[in-house]
Amino acid sequence: MADSFIKLTRGVPAPESFPASQLIECAQAVLSGSETGAVLQYGPVGGYLPLRQHIAQEAGVEEKRIIIGQGSLHLQDMVAKLLLKPGDLVYVEEPSYDRTITLLRRAQARVAGIALEADGIDISALEKRLKAGERPVLFYLIPDFQNPSGSVLSLEKRQRVVALAEEYGFWIIEDSPYRRLRYKGNEISSIFGLSPGRVMKMSSYSKLIAPGLRVGYVITPPEIVASLTQYAEDTYITPSYLNQAIVIEFIRRGWLETNLEKLKALYAPRLESMLAALASSMGELATWSKPEGGFFIGLTLKARVNASELLARAKQANLGLTDGRGFFVSGGGDGFVRLPFCALTQEEITEGIGRLAEIVRESG
Amino acid sequence: MADSFIKLTRGVPAPESFPASQLIECAQAVLSGSETGAVLQYGPVGGYLPLRQHIAQEAGVEEKRIIIGQGSLHLQDMVAKLLLKPGDLVYVEEPSYDRTITLLRRAQARVAGIALEADGIDISALEKRLKAGERPVLFYLIPDFQNPSGSVLSLEKRQRVVALAEEYGFWIIEDSPYRRLRYKGNEISSIFGLSPGRVMKMSSYSKLIAPGLRVGYVITPPEIVASLTQYAEDTYITPSYLNQAIVIEFIRRGWLETNLEKLKALYAPRLESMLAALASSMGELATWSKPEGGFFIGLTLKARVNASELLARAKQANLGLTDGRGFFVSGGGDGFVRLPFCALTQEEITEGIGRLAEIVRESG
Repeated sequence: MADSFIKLTRGVPAPESFPASQLIECAQAVLSGSETGAVLQYGPVGGYLPLRQHIAQEAGVEEKRIIIGQGSLHLQDMVAKLLLKPGDLVYVEEPSYDRTITLLRRAQARVAGIALEADGIDISALEKRLKAGERPVLFYLIPDFQNPSGSVLSLEKRQRVVALAEEYGFWIIEDSPYRRLRYKGNEISSIFGLSPGRVMKMSSYSKLIAPGLRVGYVITPPEIVASLTQYAEDTYITPSYLNQAIVIEFIRRGWLETNLEKLKALYAPRLESMLAALASSMGELATWSKPEGGFFIGLTLKARVNASELLARAKQANLGLTDGRGFFVSGGGDGFVRLPFCALTQEEITEGIGRLAEIVRESG
Repeated sequence: MADSFIKLTRGVPAPESFPASQLIECAQAVLSGSETGAVLQYGPVGGYLPLRQHIAQEAGVEEKRIIIGQGSLHLQDMVAKLLLKPGDLVYVEEPSYDRTITLLRRAQARVAGIALEADGIDISALEKRLKAGERPVLFYLIPDFQNPSGSVLSLEKRQRVVALAEEYGFWIIEDSPYRRLRYKGNEISSIFGLSPGRVMKMSSYSKLIAPGLRVGYVITPPEIVASLTQYAEDTYITPSYLNQAIVIEFIRRGWLETNLEKLKALYAPRLESMLAALASSMGELATWSKPEGGFFIGLTLKARVNASELLARAKQANLGLTDGRGFFVSGGGDGFVRLPFCALTQEEITEGIGRLAEIVRESG
């Protein structure tokens, strides 16, 4: 343990959580049933109909508004390319998901950050910017167990951001891959649930079953369902129906619910271990979020540090960290550390946080 | 039969050709072996290593130059977005694959067509344009059993286009999804084989195993491997390793070779039936290619027709056609009909061509 490399880099699920034998049964079922020909063929780009119908029913929308793609990041990329012109303004939480920031910038958007507080975005700052005349095309939000901070947007702020979206006419992208991984506390209404007309809700089965399936989806607003569907078809013709058929078979058998319970039982103690390790060794050195679910704790160091030096020292100590600056669009982030806890054992978590504390103490 | 709808629209494989039970065995093997964790997890965007290694070995290049994505059209889209600036000139065969034309135009390229002859592009016309000062960034070619014409680029023309690419410094995209489906005659060297430095070779397992897997790849030139790999990672993180693992398992078991034999045995008589049906009913009305493989015969009507009218009449006669104009970038194409033959029975082919002849005769 003392010598092993510990990865606190990206938010990956625990490989021991993958329901491989159940997936074999699902693959067998979909490849030997009456749907086999359809599952292996080209088909409508929106995705495999039974899974579309399931997601549509869950969301209370028509199935044609569901596009199931190959991971939700790619759907975000298409939405960005479709909706954004060079120079268009886009808001993100600050910090936000680094990969989304990258693709928004690649679409030549001006990406501006709205600071995160413990209960989500600084809504007064948002209102002030809108009142001052800023007109974003969209606001990308991860309201549940945010990546990278772990924060949850409060109900009141969800209501206020929705009211602002309606008043100022911007889209909200609600990205919610972690929403169903709540280890304690009570669920809050999704933003989509509050204002389905202004919200593109995205989610995926990567964190709920396995990333290697690449099954993510978007609930498309009526105004852009036709153009986004055409854009997707012109990009990849058809997603992998095989994977989508496996997912709906998994759901039909009731295995998604049992898998969620299994994941919560696996991840909740890891979250507790990390919170305990932080409390015991980082109390003087940093502040951090106390999430009730998801994949991440967001840590902010009290001392001024240089991110490159921190990463280099961590590497020397056999500890992998992600550069905190990638999550901030307005500069800064040197002292921000995203701590993913799901794919590490409790021992690795304790050891990893111990190493981090030591490095920070030495850097101080 | 007389009343059934016959689809001569897109180039889809015959569903009865899908090796479903073998794919079940492959899925079972990859989900129960030592690689299960890796197959269901995120990983390097270039794709599942054993399949990358296999493709690299076949092509005689390093494995890092292989990017296996989710269908080759999407890889084309990323290449276009990475390499092309608005207004850049791109050559395609005329006619060419309509979906590629769409994505090149979406990247705001100026798309120009080089006319096809029986043995591929009009190489003198190409040379003349280059000598006159045109400077394309890339030339998109489907040299083997071209979509939509069915033509094969001759060896001499392959050598000349490669020499021109080297002289004038443009990239060649060699798209070869049908290359291994040759029903008679002799294989000609790939363009990549003649000039690996200037060629991005693309192919896919959609026509060789099943489209529903979405496994396509590009052999990336050394100069852009790093940027294209980064672009792909920023777009979809990881492709579906599960599907790629199934493909390499299928190949390792020797099943791709037997599947190719099965496909040739299924498709070759369909091609012959279509050629026979054309000879018996369209001889006075049209000219057509006589391909030795692939998915398509390209038909050119002798009379002046209006494509919209032709499609409408075909629909009335329960016959689905694709709009020929979509394959032509310089206008025209009204009298061009792409005839896919793989997913139809011999009876459907005879009936379908009979209906087409009748419609054309009535329109003339």
